[in-house]
Parts: sequence; structure tokens; C-alpha cells
Amino acid sequence: MDQLDLWTDTATRSAIVDFVERVDRDGIPVAERVAVFDNDGTLWTEKPVQIQMQFVFALWAKMADADPSLASQQPFKAVVDRDFGWLSDAVDKHYAGDDTDMKTLMAGTVRASAGQEVEAYTASAKAFLDSGTHPSLGIPFARCVFAPMVELLRYLEAHDFTTYIASGGDRDFMRGAGEDLYAIPRERVIGSSLGLRYADGNVSYAPEMGFFDDGPEKPVRIWSRIGRKPLLVGGNSNGDVPMLEFCRDDGLQLLVHHDDGDREFAYDAGAEEALKAAADKGWTTVSMRDDWAAVFPDSET
Amino acid sequence: MDQLDLWTDTATRSAIVDFVERVDRDGIPVAERVAVFDNDGTLWTEKPVQIQMQFVFALWAKMADADPSLASQQPFKAVVDRDFGWLSDAVDKHYAGDDTDMKTLMAGTVRASAGQEVEAYTASAKAFLDSGTHPSLGIPFARCVFAPMVELLRYLEAHDFTTYIASGGDRDFMRGAGEDLYAIPRERVIGSSLGLRYADGNVSYAPEMGFFDDGPEKPVRIWSRIGRKPLLVGGNSNGDVPMLEFCRDDGLQLLVHHDDGDREFAYDAGAEEALKAAADKGWTTVSMRDDWAAVFPDSET
Repeated sequence: MDQLDLWTDTATRSAIVDFVERVDRDGIPVAERVAVFDNDGTLWTEKPVQIQMQFVFALWAKMADADPSLASQQPFKAVVDRDFGWLSDAVDKHYAGDDTDMKTLMAGTVRASAGQEVEAYTASAKAFLDSGTHPSLGIPFARCVFAPMVELLRYLEAHDFTTYIASGGDRDFMRGAGEDLYAIPRERVIGSSLGLRYADGNVSYAPEMGFFDDGPEKPVRIWSRIGRKPLLVGGNSNGDVPMLEFCRDDGLQLLVHHDDGDREFAYDAGAEEALKAAADKGWTTVSMRDDWAAVFPDSET
Repeated sequence: MDQLDLWTDTATRSAIVDFVERVDRDGIPVAERVAVFDNDGTLWTEKPVQIQMQFVFALWAKMADADPSLASQQPFKAVVDRDFGWLSDAVDKHYAGDDTDMKTLMAGTVRASAGQEVEAYTASAKAFLDSGTHPSLGIPFARCVFAPMVELLRYLEAHDFTTYIASGGDRDFMRGAGEDLYAIPRERVIGSSLGLRYADGNVSYAPEMGFFDDGPEKPVRIWSRIGRKPLLVGGNSNGDVPMLEFCRDDGLQLLVHHDDGDREFAYDAGAEEALKAAADKGWTTVSMRDDWAAVFPDSET
């Protein structure tokens, strides 16, 4: 699969193919052919709530089962009551500048994993993704990836690019599944992390956030991991703007636009600045509706 | 070069070859064949002072040239006066529990790079290593690597291992040279870092330390970068003990012992706990004197 069969014959597809042909023609060294993609909303669906959070909700439900006193406290209460409005409002309020509920949500996320050994956590995340189903799309999580983007990963690799994920989501959650979902190995998954502690031969999660890999932290983490500016960067939201700016001058920036309410979800919320930056700076906007022949794998849509 | 020709026919060489043959025989998946090596004192010489510090000294000398008032302040004064005793004492005191001069030294190190863009720094480090000569060994920095260890890197890679550096030294300094010295690419160099800042499409060093990749931080950084426990770990000092402990149960730990005063340097200082741990836990100690047919590349010694 080294062709872009799932991309319709539009200016977007041409921009990608022309760029990759130029990279080959100019003989840009293989070591410099680094392609970095955001994950949520860029490589797989992020609505109505990020898939990682659905994993966290399952952990909270188990915790509230084990300790019923949690059922009256947020964020556990929202999961026990199936009050997904509280959870999505927390995220919306965060983007609107009010962090109160987001802090409660993050504290619950930290608490769900604190003390756990890192390899065990990665394995449990993989088991969740292998077995679960998306609540509103009704398809397995493993099929929530955007098939044209997976095809693009393979196309780039066929042209000697090395592909990375730089996610705002939890790094170790995605590592458990990245190999199966995207054929991207663990060492090429960059993302947020809880604090880590070493003791007695093992690394475990600390009861505190480590860092949040979003916005200006993304280029910092990309440099820390890779040691190069990327030659291609793909994103979809405001938090991806610094990473898109951190692309080489001779590189390509792709911004996935969620404009396909029939096949996925249509929304600009959280992407307003990114869409404006794409227009101002000449980044290539990918219309899910117009540029993709299919959205999810093994489907006619 | 997939043989261990520079390793004499001792129990150490047999332990390495037997281990690698077992990995092949047991069919340990290629993705899990991760080998991680400390750098200073493990892959190249670290005496009488770490090579990175010689780069920093050169930066300090330039700074004192540009601003003569610095010549009366430590750590700049030590370099201007060629008082290398003050500098090595600072490190010795640090290991003895007194951090006063080490803090002065670190503050100077931070100041030497603060504000610089990361790629420019990496390029200047490479230029330094390409052109400089080791002050006491009298050989180019490029030949300060331990030839049997470079041979071991290639031997492991020939058996489908992926090799990494996990250095207590500065990550971006080693990235500039790791490709030439060891044929290890930038994304496989883990190490300490100054703080990083993103602005206007570039990442630069902040006027503060980011983290110091030594002791218990080493397994944390290895996990963060790779997402796996290593199958082989090589080190030489007390700061490498946690990383050596973070090896898989079916893995191999190598501890390089500096016992060759004729060909390199003979010292146990800073390695006392590591040598004791190796004896207690059955790690493989590498005697530079007995196990290596040569120490440096292209030499008879």
C-alpha cells in the first residue's frame, strides 16, 4: 500500500504527491525525512470525547465499584451517573479559559494510574483498545482510525520517511495500541505523561502530572525525542499550531478539517486559530468531505 | 564488522556471545532487542574531565574574551587561568556531597548556551568534536571512543538489536557527534538537557537546567524515550546502577571497569557501588585491561 488510493483526485492529493516527489528529486537525506502527526482528530476520531478518556472512564467505574464513596465525587460521579455532559463541558470550559472542572478531571486521571508500573499500564491500554467499541460510531476502536491517514503513513514510509505520533493525549496509552492501529512502534510515540518514578528495577506513575504535550510543548517534545525539525507535520487543532510552525521551511504542513458530518463529525471548535493560520501561511488543509474517498477502514464511507 | 575481534578470548567475550546466541535461539522479537549504553566512561573516555566539559570550557573562554569582567568570576576564571584543578575538584566535591562549586559550574554551563537555537548548538558541538584533540591523550576527540564498544554496537545491530545512548551528559551535545562517532542517529541519543522554549517556529535553550539524566532519572528517561525495558544495558559508574537494574530479567548487564592505566586510565572512584552491585547481582564486568585487545580505534593499544 504505497499509493494514495483513498485520497480523491483533488489539489490536496496533488500537494502531497508533488511534495514527496520533490523530496525524492532533491535527494533530501533519509535521516531528515521526519514526518510527525498529531493523533486525536488527525489520525483517529476524537469525538464526542477522546478515546483515551473512555479508557479512563472505565478505570473510574472500576474504582467507584471498589470504593462506593467515590460515586458522589467528581469526576467519578459523572461516570457512575453516565453524565457525559459534565465531562465534555469540562473540556469545553477549559478551552474557554475556565480550568476548574478540567483540574478535577485531570486529578481523577492521575489517580486512576498512580502507582501502576508502566509496562502493565501500556498492556491494559492495548487490551482496552483491542476489545472496545466506540460509543456513538458503533465500530471497534481499532476501526476509529482515518484510513486515508494510515495510507499516508505507509506512502511516506515507502518514500523513506520515518513517521512519528506527537499526541496531546497520553503517550503510554497510545504506545499500547500504536503498533496495531498505525504500525508505528513505541519509540516513535510522543505524548503527554504522568510523572514517573524509578524504584527497585521498575518505573511507575507518580501521583502527579508530568507534562501536557500540547501547544508550545509539542515542538519542545518533538525536538527532545527526535533531534530534528520535521519535514512534514500533520495536525487538526489549535494545540497543533506551534508544531505545524516547527516544520522545516522546505516542508509540508497538513491540517485535517472536520467538515464531514455525514461520515464523521463536523466541527471547527478548537480549530479556529489553526484554520486561520493555515489560510494565512499557505498550509494544506485536508477536507475530510472532499479529499477522502473513505474515512474509516473497510467501509464504503 | 559483525565479529568481536577486539575482544580477547575471555569469559567476558563468551558471556556476550552466549547471550546474543540465546536471544537469536529463543527468537526474542526484534522490537524487544533494545540495547542501551551510557556514554562517558562506557563508550568513550571521560578522564581527566568529560569531553563535553572541554566544549563548555571553550565557550567560557570565548565569553571571557568578549566580556573581560567574567575573568575574575568562577567558573570562567578557572578556564582563563587554566586552573583545571578547580574544575575537577568541583566534580569530586559533588560526588562527595558538597554541591557548592558544582552549582557554580552548572550555572556557567547553562549561561553558555541560554538563548541559543537547538540546531545551531548541535552543529557547533559537532564542529568542536570534529576538529579538537584530547588534552592528555593527545588524540583527536573522534578517536577517544572505545573501539571494542563500537564493535559491540555493530555486533548487536547485526543481531537485530537497536542501540541507544543514555548519557548523563548533554543530549544535544552528543547528538551532534553520535552519528559520526558511533553511527547512532540523533533520535537514539538520550541524555541531560537544558530547559527548552518554543517561540516563533524555533526551539531554544532556556536560562535554566531542564533535567539531569543520571541515577534514577536514567530508567525514567529510557522508558520515556523507548517505551520498553532494555534487553542489554552497558554502564561504568554509580550513576548507571538504576539503569542497569532496569534491564529485563532475561537480559545482560555490562559494567566497564577502568583498570587499564597503561592504555587509558585506572580508577574506581565513582564506580564503587556499581562494582559492588555487579559482584552481588552477577552482572558482567568488562576489564579494559584483560578483555580488550585494543582500547582506541586504529591503534596497536
